Amino acid sequence: MQVDVQPSNATARDAAMAELAATFGAERIVTGKDIRNRHGTDESYHPTVAPDAVFFARSTEEVSQAVTICAKHKWPVIPFGVGTSLEGGVAALRGGLSVDVSEMNKILAVNADDLDVRVQAGVTRKQLNEYLRDTGLMFPIDPGADASIGGMCATRASGTNAVRYGTMRDNVLSLTVVMADGRVVKTARRAKKSAAGYDLTRLFVGSEGTLGVITEIQLKVYGIPEAISSAVVQFDDLESAVSTCVLTIQSGVPVARMELLDDSQMGACIAYSKLEGYTARPTLFFEFHGSETGVVEQAETVQGIAAEFGGTDFKWATKAEDRNKLWEARHNAFYAALALRPGAKGWPTDVCVPISRLAECITETKKDLAETGLLAPLVGHVGDGNFHLVYVIDPESQEEMRLAKEHSDRMVLRALSMDGTCTGEHGVGYGKMEFLAAELPEAIPVMRAVKQALDPDNIMNPGKLFRMN
Amino acid sequence: MQVDVQPSNATARDAAMAELAATFGAERIVTGKDIRNRHGTDESYHPTVAPDAVFFARSTEEVSQAVTICAKHKWPVIPFGVGTSLEGGVAALRGGLSVDVSEMNKILAVNADDLDVRVQAGVTRKQLNEYLRDTGLMFPIDPGADASIGGMCATRASGTNAVRYGTMRDNVLSLTVVMADGRVVKTARRAKKSAAGYDLTRLFVGSEGTLGVITEIQLKVYGIPEAISSAVVQFDDLESAVSTCVLTIQSGVPVARMELLDDSQMGACIAYSKLEGYTARPTLFFEFHGSETGVVEQAETVQGIAAEFGGTDFKWATKAEDRNKLWEARHNAFYAALALRPGAKGWPTDVCVPISRLAECITETKKDLAETGLLAPLVGHVGDGNFHLVYVIDPESQEEMRLAKEHSDRMVLRALSMDGTCTGEHGVGYGKMEFLAAELPEAIPVMRAVKQALDPDNIMNPGKLFRMN
Repeated sequence: MQVDVQPSNATARDAAMAELAATFGAERIVTGKDIRNRHGTDESYHPTVAPDAVFFARSTEEVSQAVTICAKHKWPVIPFGVGTSLEGGVAALRGGLSVDVSEMNKILAVNADDLDVRVQAGVTRKQLNEYLRDTGLMFPIDPGADASIGGMCATRASGTNAVRYGTMRDNVLSLTVVMADGRVVKTARRAKKSAAGYDLTRLFVGSEGTLGVITEIQLKVYGIPEAISSAVVQFDDLESAVSTCVLTIQSGVPVARMELLDDSQMGACIAYSKLEGYTARPTLFFEFHGSETGVVEQAETVQGIAAEFGGTDFKWATKAEDRNKLWEARHNAFYAALALRPGAKGWPTDVCVPISRLAECITETKKDLAETGLLAPLVGHVGDGNFHLVYVIDPESQEEMRLAKEHSDRMVLRALSMDGTCTGEHGVGYGKMEFLAAELPEAIPVMRAVKQALDPDNIMNPGKLFRMN
Repeated sequence: MQVDVQPSNATARDAAMAELAATFGAERIVTGKDIRNRHGTDESYHPTVAPDAVFFARSTEEVSQAVTICAKHKWPVIPFGVGTSLEGGVAALRGGLSVDVSEMNKILAVNADDLDVRVQAGVTRKQLNEYLRDTGLMFPIDPGADASIGGMCATRASGTNAVRYGTMRDNVLSLTVVMADGRVVKTARRAKKSAAGYDLTRLFVGSEGTLGVITEIQLKVYGIPEAISSAVVQFDDLESAVSTCVLTIQSGVPVARMELLDDSQMGACIAYSKLEGYTARPTLFFEFHGSETGVVEQAETVQGIAAEFGGTDFKWATKAEDRNKLWEARHNAFYAALALRPGAKGWPTDVCVPISRLAECITETKKDLAETGLLAPLVGHVGDGNFHLVYVIDPESQEEMRLAKEHSDRMVLRALSMDGTCTGEHGVGYGKMEFLAAELPEAIPVMRAVKQALDPDNIMNPGKLFRMN
């Protein structure tokens, strides 16, 4: 596929880089090819588009200084966390400076009594949970990858636990943001709720670096539940597995996780993660959080529902190590899929539909897939109506790319026709711009007006989300 | 207090009204004084500021047509639901047309399987729950007043159930909005989550009519819980009651409601709602939702916590009629407070602080209040850190108004110093503009830029939230 890459203005670039070097020291404006390439690369099939330089910022003030310089020269700024995004969000489509916040990785405050923490944007979710472990608290949002919290905010990430704990939208109390002109703005106070003016916090969550650089986050955390248990149940057909999910949600069972793997994905995980005692059939992974009795109650309800659909072989994992092995396997699903075809790249899709349409959407999508001959395991956060096909492809093969693109297009249009979205959690980047335009046609001019108002020179992560003209 | 009222431009007004009359028929552009006054009046102490005319819209298309005409003549538009707001949000500070959506009261769709509904903006929360009753579903957000869903979106309302079910921020899937130029925009699809572009839904939730007129709402609903029980426990002192709340939240008990009434408010409610078996002491009202065993488990935990703080006399209400009587009394707290002094008006405050600071905030506020001699019962959604003092005052008395204003100012500054907000749920209107500026000083220019971009002529509910220059 063609990528719309335009180098930055050379005069602006040279002037900005000279001023950045003068301000921070030349050695901190990194132009080595490897580092630049890494900062123009995400975890997907999108090609590397390297920035002109990389700046490893150490504080909000430094980000502000750097952005102020870039703004003066109208030179692009691309915020960078750890590079685990999937839609080309970090690609430097117009050149510019990658502002890497990974060294801003301090946990600034833990307010255990208020169930919130304050972190710098470069803190990763695993780092945070490691840090919190002894406090009895946890940060549940889990997109699989060990993403930075700043990056998770920027893409409105969610993942396996969202069915219970919501997405980043629901779990951010306040942000500190460096705006496109270098100003530093705090979007809200630390109160649990507020009706004080426009919800700027939510405006920046999901803005994918196009409105500013998120540098600090006040984040909700949760008490580690008294009891946690996991279970796996396998089905003879995909529809029975999906129906089990749908009825579980409709019954109001507060499952913490409910993940679907199709036969292909389950086979990949069994091989990759050496899971024993399972076969390559449609499978549901569950996790239950609550009190000792609450967890048992939830599990019994779900077991009953699964049995109605022929899922009789409930395998329990109450020991932490067994649970971890299972969820590790689930988390590695993407890499397991890639391992099916060494050297291939993954193109993950991300539609999300109202749950009443989920079975139909998955069934039609799989039927369509069979006709393409493509390899594309399916895994899904099905409690939210969100699922991912991962096309395991050779991006050099025009034929494979064409087949995948056409299938993906049909799947997205199918999801939209069901009042769903093209992206449940991966974001738009530049990979889904045409889908966003199809999904929310009247909303795009409103988004564009907001972008224009807050970033009039279009220096913040340009070329993403929607066209500016 | 002085209110900054400026009449609209007479030429613009006459031209807009003539065109509106030509479009909809003269009889639909209502200029009778009583109707106009009602539309410039909310439930608080703020004085009536009537619009020039009132238009009872019947559809999104009609709102769009009306706003298009107003936009052409740069004449203000003030969206109106049922008028239960509390910060002067409906006051026509710059004259203009009140667009009343109360006749847009159709429930357009109930998607029971997806746990969502689609309603017109004029549907009230009680109407919706009445409609849903036979479906086993409920809409839990409950600000007390029988507000319109559109109005609840506009002010980011919450109320007694927010501790469990969140605020309007968390419960809106998508909005249909008529923008300041008359365009109609749908902000999102019906999927439960999405990462598709800027979160325009959340931008409009809480925008208090300053960015557009909300005409339709896709709303989350919930299954009516298997079991519901309520309990009341009284304490000898306020601090013990607050400490019970704080520990309940910190223990992770998923209470559905947890409301604090101080001695004064409890006395008022006993008198107004003829509650028997209670005394005028600090009191907590609880409601528990869940499975039969879950509800018992929650209640036992809370009972244990209350006992630690001397709250031993747990009174249960498991029968629906007893529960309803209790919550009816709680809902009428505002009117009960007013009844303490016939003819007086209520000035409700709305600070919200991190829960770890709640006891201190309430204690200092009450101590300060005692020194003023003002009558001001306290009621609070204390699980969220949010409480309301209601000054029961004579707005004609400059001395009372001064004392109340000074006390309120001190309370808000106290809450801000604790990293809290000036408004947990009532919104800013024009009554809290100076507090919003104090709370989020760097954010105001960002909000202003967004407003300027989406409403360049400042016709949407002008004079609210923040100054435009």
